[in-house]
Amino acid sequence: MVDQNADLTAAGDPALLPSLRWDEPPEGPVLVLLDQTRLPAEETELVCTDVPALVEAIRTLAVRGAPLLGLAGAYGVALAAVRGYDVEEAAGLLSGARPTAVNLGYGVRRALAAYRKAAAGGGGPEEAAAAALTAARELHRQDAEASLRMAEHGVALLRELLPGGGYRLLTHCNTGRLVSGGEGTALAVAREVHRMGELRRLWVDETRPLLQGSRLTAWEAARNGMAYTLLSDNAAGSLFSSGEVDAVLIGADRIAADGSVANKVGSYPLAVLARYHHVPFIVVAPSTTVDPETPDGASIEVEQRPGHEVTEIVPPQVPGLVREAGVGISLAPLGTQAYNPAFDVTPPELVTAIVTEHGVVSPVTGDAIGDLCSRSRQVTIS
Amino acid sequence: MVDQNADLTAAGDPALLPSLRWDEPPEGPVLVLLDQTRLPAEETELVCTDVPALVEAIRTLAVRGAPLLGLAGAYGVALAAVRGYDVEEAAGLLSGARPTAVNLGYGVRRALAAYRKAAAGGGGPEEAAAAALTAARELHRQDAEASLRMAEHGVALLRELLPGGGYRLLTHCNTGRLVSGGEGTALAVAREVHRMGELRRLWVDETRPLLQGSRLTAWEAARNGMAYTLLSDNAAGSLFSSGEVDAVLIGADRIAADGSVANKVGSYPLAVLARYHHVPFIVVAPSTTVDPETPDGASIEVEQRPGHEVTEIVPPQVPGLVREAGVGISLAPLGTQAYNPAFDVTPPELVTAIVTEHGVVSPVTGDAIGDLCSRSRQVTIS
Repeated sequence: MVDQNADLTAAGDPALLPSLRWDEPPEGPVLVLLDQTRLPAEETELVCTDVPALVEAIRTLAVRGAPLLGLAGAYGVALAAVRGYDVEEAAGLLSGARPTAVNLGYGVRRALAAYRKAAAGGGGPEEAAAAALTAARELHRQDAEASLRMAEHGVALLRELLPGGGYRLLTHCNTGRLVSGGEGTALAVAREVHRMGELRRLWVDETRPLLQGSRLTAWEAARNGMAYTLLSDNAAGSLFSSGEVDAVLIGADRIAADGSVANKVGSYPLAVLARYHHVPFIVVAPSTTVDPETPDGASIEVEQRPGHEVTEIVPPQVPGLVREAGVGISLAPLGTQAYNPAFDVTPPELVTAIVTEHGVVSPVTGDAIGDLCSRSRQVTIS
Repeated sequence: MVDQNADLTAAGDPALLPSLRWDEPPEGPVLVLLDQTRLPAEETELVCTDVPALVEAIRTLAVRGAPLLGLAGAYGVALAAVRGYDVEEAAGLLSGARPTAVNLGYGVRRALAAYRKAAAGGGGPEEAAAAALTAARELHRQDAEASLRMAEHGVALLRELLPGGGYRLLTHCNTGRLVSGGEGTALAVAREVHRMGELRRLWVDETRPLLQGSRLTAWEAARNGMAYTLLSDNAAGSLFSSGEVDAVLIGADRIAADGSVANKVGSYPLAVLARYHHVPFIVVAPSTTVDPETPDGASIEVEQRPGHEVTEIVPPQVPGLVREAGVGISLAPLGTQAYNPAFDVTPPELVTAIVTEHGVVSPVTGDAIGDLCSRSRQVTIS
């Protein structure tokens, strides 16, 4: 296993560094990730030559965000296949790297199916590996396409719900270019609003404990020239009560069959605040985020992460993937125990609408989610 | 102005270092503060020899918490008087140091009134200074006594609302011994519950941006041997939705005549969550926190603090009072603008009860607050 941090910031416009890319240097194929743990301090790429390195990057959130995890899973299977590792074992490792994001498993299954089909069809290992890579690339293309569609549908929904324009949008965690093969999910909608000249303010929750809002969304917003303001997550209440939020836009890590939405911890309190203040709470996610096998919110497994993410802070300036207890700066007394769920679950009755690449689901009901899944399957099959 | 950081951790049981004490070393009277910006990394006392040093300590939150600010204000007036400074000017400086906490102005006015009365009665400067110091000491004694009464009334209220015992209490910011001449407000209630063996869990919100929960409440809870667990503020939603919170206990910085409660930012979202989940939301504060001159929540001036408190983090390990932009570790892209209100306002309809030293106000209405003020004045007069 060879892990390298290649600083490519001088190699061109850093705004164009992709979140994830497949590369084939003379040393052999690699999956190259923009290391999100070091943003915004440094724009550094992380080169994965094997699946254990990729799994480590997924666990430490160097690569993160539901759609991008799908791509990482698919390319990971391709990487194992192309490099001649045990593909079934690699698929198992990748699928288990993080439990809540459904897209990860989806991406793995999709590339694995292509691999198995080619192998079963009598193709040799090279042909099967090529099939896995083609599947990953196809998912990548579809994901970028889905971002465009979600942005369109999201803007249309905002126009319908809030005909005045000049939107003040509150977002949580990071859902932009960094989570996607394209422009992202919720942040792609906000960016389209910005392009239209209709973004009055993007309110960016800092998103404790790992500060994806401060580190990543603020970085993307600044790059895009959006009017944004950062806030501590718990200051959102003051914005709602002073009427300064027109809509909440968030992503999703898993949507259950009943429309329950698992997303970054802190989403549920926003949903309750939004309901209390009659503000639309809009989830933007590709249809692959829906998991028909998960019947309801209570069935969603929520990843519990280590307490040191809360009791210590690792500044983005600290290089490397080591995110163990004791590495960071201590913020609490030694021995403090912390409760650190990575996600929370918002019940469908608090979700105004789910925006997908196939259109808007609203009101959010089990039947409407079922219809979406049917449409989604038709599109995938066609 | 002479400012000294005297490390007294070796001078005895550090658990007994008071949050604030008057001392009269040979060099002259001083007000000695436990420097709360450096907890839990270091237990260091900060020696104030004049009012500008004390004002700086108030602004940087080296001394903080509504009741303790009242004591700091009163002792500050006494310090100016005893040291022969301009007392009226000192009172003005102290009153304006932080706008939201009503107790600060109350403490200042009380010591100033005693000073003026003694001066008007023909007493010389020494006699007037002694009167100011006596008033500060009397307020200190009353504050400790009020803590005891609030703890009693708070426990009685919990028993009434939740007869089962074995409480899981959620608290925000810091409201213990560090904010008071005694045991504090909300945390004093939790500590009494703990002494009775009825505390199942103290959930401690970390309280971004300045982490009073991680740094101070966790420290006090650990010192007291309480079963506590720290969480990111936005993880409270998950605790509510899984039914793991029996009651919310918080303090207050100002209570308006209609019962609106200004408290540390993040209190209002907890109030909305508590209401949504039918969990009691209990405010614990001395009656001096009620400001009959502030008619309602909209009239409460909320202190806006600098954005660098959100965009940068100053670890408690960094010594000194310098809390300017650029000193901390950057968490967001350079130039990021932040919204950083220090407090939020919870309307009376979301407050289950206000616990004071004179008893419990519930339901919280303007009339009930008026009655409390009458009782409070009778007690002060008698």
